[in-house]
Amino acid sequence: MSVTYPQGFRAAGMAVGLKSTGKPDLALVVNDGPHPASAAVFTSNRAQANPILWSRKVMLQGTARGIVLNSGGANYFTGDFGYETTRLTAEAVAKEITANSDEILVCSTGLIGTGDQVFRDKIVNNIGELVSQLGPDSSAAASAILTTDSVTKTADYTSEAGWRIGAMAKGAGMLAPGLATMLVVITTDAQIDDATADRALRAATAVSFDRLDSDGCMSTNDQVTLLASGATEVAVDESEFVTALTEVCDSLAQQLQADAEGASHDIDIEVRGAASAADAIEVGRSVARNNLFKAAIFGNDPNWGRVLAAIGTTTADFDPYQVDVSFNGVRLCHAGAPDRAVDECDLTPRKTHVLIDLRSGQSTATIRTNDLTHDYVHENSAYSS
Amino acid sequence: MSVTYPQGFRAAGMAVGLKSTGKPDLALVVNDGPHPASAAVFTSNRAQANPILWSRKVMLQGTARGIVLNSGGANYFTGDFGYETTRLTAEAVAKEITANSDEILVCSTGLIGTGDQVFRDKIVNNIGELVSQLGPDSSAAASAILTTDSVTKTADYTSEAGWRIGAMAKGAGMLAPGLATMLVVITTDAQIDDATADRALRAATAVSFDRLDSDGCMSTNDQVTLLASGATEVAVDESEFVTALTEVCDSLAQQLQADAEGASHDIDIEVRGAASAADAIEVGRSVARNNLFKAAIFGNDPNWGRVLAAIGTTTADFDPYQVDVSFNGVRLCHAGAPDRAVDECDLTPRKTHVLIDLRSGQSTATIRTNDLTHDYVHENSAYSS
Repeated sequence: MSVTYPQGFRAAGMAVGLKSTGKPDLALVVNDGPHPASAAVFTSNRAQANPILWSRKVMLQGTARGIVLNSGGANYFTGDFGYETTRLTAEAVAKEITANSDEILVCSTGLIGTGDQVFRDKIVNNIGELVSQLGPDSSAAASAILTTDSVTKTADYTSEAGWRIGAMAKGAGMLAPGLATMLVVITTDAQIDDATADRALRAATAVSFDRLDSDGCMSTNDQVTLLASGATEVAVDESEFVTALTEVCDSLAQQLQADAEGASHDIDIEVRGAASAADAIEVGRSVARNNLFKAAIFGNDPNWGRVLAAIGTTTADFDPYQVDVSFNGVRLCHAGAPDRAVDECDLTPRKTHVLIDLRSGQSTATIRTNDLTHDYVHENSAYSS
Repeated sequence: MSVTYPQGFRAAGMAVGLKSTGKPDLALVVNDGPHPASAAVFTSNRAQANPILWSRKVMLQGTARGIVLNSGGANYFTGDFGYETTRLTAEAVAKEITANSDEILVCSTGLIGTGDQVFRDKIVNNIGELVSQLGPDSSAAASAILTTDSVTKTADYTSEAGWRIGAMAKGAGMLAPGLATMLVVITTDAQIDDATADRALRAATAVSFDRLDSDGCMSTNDQVTLLASGATEVAVDESEFVTALTEVCDSLAQQLQADAEGASHDIDIEVRGAASAADAIEVGRSVARNNLFKAAIFGNDPNWGRVLAAIGTTTADFDPYQVDVSFNGVRLCHAGAPDRAVDECDLTPRKTHVLIDLRSGQSTATIRTNDLTHDYVHENSAYSS
């Protein structure tokens, strides 16, 4: 169960031929209310695909009633024709479910530059059939948004008060914050308004998806959407809702990390003792993006020198001769000098924990990343995506 | 011929056992004047190794008379003991060549954390023998500074006025600006003063080594040093000297790029039409550091969408719908839409040219980088460095 786990939602997914594999590639989630609310956050890449431009407009104008998503083509750098495709897609959905087109969000993912007449026809001409398949089973929808993902990603949450959260996500590479290359749809049957939904979504993504940095590359098509139906008619405590939403987002972020293209290690870089949260994030991210560090982890080499070299490229408050670095619980560098022997450290498990103590303050942050492997190079060199 | 090509210099190189291979690992270049001048630029990494701390002090205090360089150990994160090793090395050289220790620059390269008593003894106890080998042949010195390099890197220049420039460099990975992971020694027999040498070296490195960004990783031990002997007693025209020095530095930068660890393509990313030089550099660097782009080039895939996604992460002035992108002379994206077919583009040659026209102004810059390959991952995962 994912997006239809809360009451008030229907979902559908089908194959319309956008993917050469014939797998599902078009998904729809409809919010049946009775008290609809919505929020969305978008890629911070300044190059933003047609569906992002469209969805931003929808969110500015009011509350979204549904979201249609395709894989098999990003519909970006496809000219005015591509934007028109997005608009026609929203209109087709709106007509079938009796809504306005400016209440329909659109997401696309796949190869940039894909979005011709054939692409348009496959989507727009199949919306009627897609709507006819709307129902309580969300598994086809969760499959239809995948690209190079090896598994579907879903999460759910049940509150004591009776409201629920459900979610589906796609993402397996080009994962860098603001956001990662991901499409996420989160639903809830709690009763909240648009403004609360927006605050809650921003708070939850800031400490989950925005701290996932698989390969430092930022996509043009990312969107995380929250749809609330209000079907339980239970008003939420905002703080409790943020906690629940964060739990769901963090679960999805870990699933994205675990399915990152070609990765053999999931690396959590925990920074402690930072002078500020911004410093902790900057340090964690600089290590997460250091190819030499990432290649060393692939080779099960706890190369703490590469960690320190990466920290040195930041503007964070630190003294190189105060820093401690531990790998999987073994402190290899203490106060800027070698500590325990590197062969005491076992990096063979997939889950890897790097702890950096800057000894400059009290702030902390964890950045999730992956190692740099032969398979990463293979997947991103042998196939266009 | 490299550092002894100009008059007034002697060099030596020998194996003292720092490298497990038994290859040369200790080098010395001495400036015999009669009008010595010097300048140096250092890594902008905030984590700076002991020899960098020492050499910075030397440059602040006056003119360098000699430079001693070792491979086989970075002498960083080695505590106060490591700094003392650097000082003792300079003192040993100074005593043998009748100079002051604060006239002797020290450079080290190799694994961070290496710099124990054995390391110290191998260097300090062999300085007498090294000095006894000083002479006009600089080939052993050029070999002794190499780490994972497959070839020595040298360059020279002869002016019409009779003065010369000679140079040797090492660097084959962890190449990012400010500086790349490199040690460079440049000599000249032109007669210039310290201030002119400093201005000229900064001008030349800013448009050569600082625009080399092989893998986005910045080292803790980089240093580029210019030593002038004044042996020709020919005063230089500063602008002519900068041009010559830039030519030498750019030749070395291209040699470093061509020898980058595991690379199969040398990629020159030329940015045109930028609103400022800073914008051009930021855009070029963002593409140069994009792993998805780099992996695509390895796969001979002219993935222009990844170029645009990388540009979108910058703060540069641009409109996604105005940008042109060409690979090896074939314009694949025009004004933000697909142009010529990607199969018209041949990426099989090692030399790769990516041209980005931002259409936002008149500024230009070229960033040199490499592709992301299986061999890069292998070399940086299988061996500690």
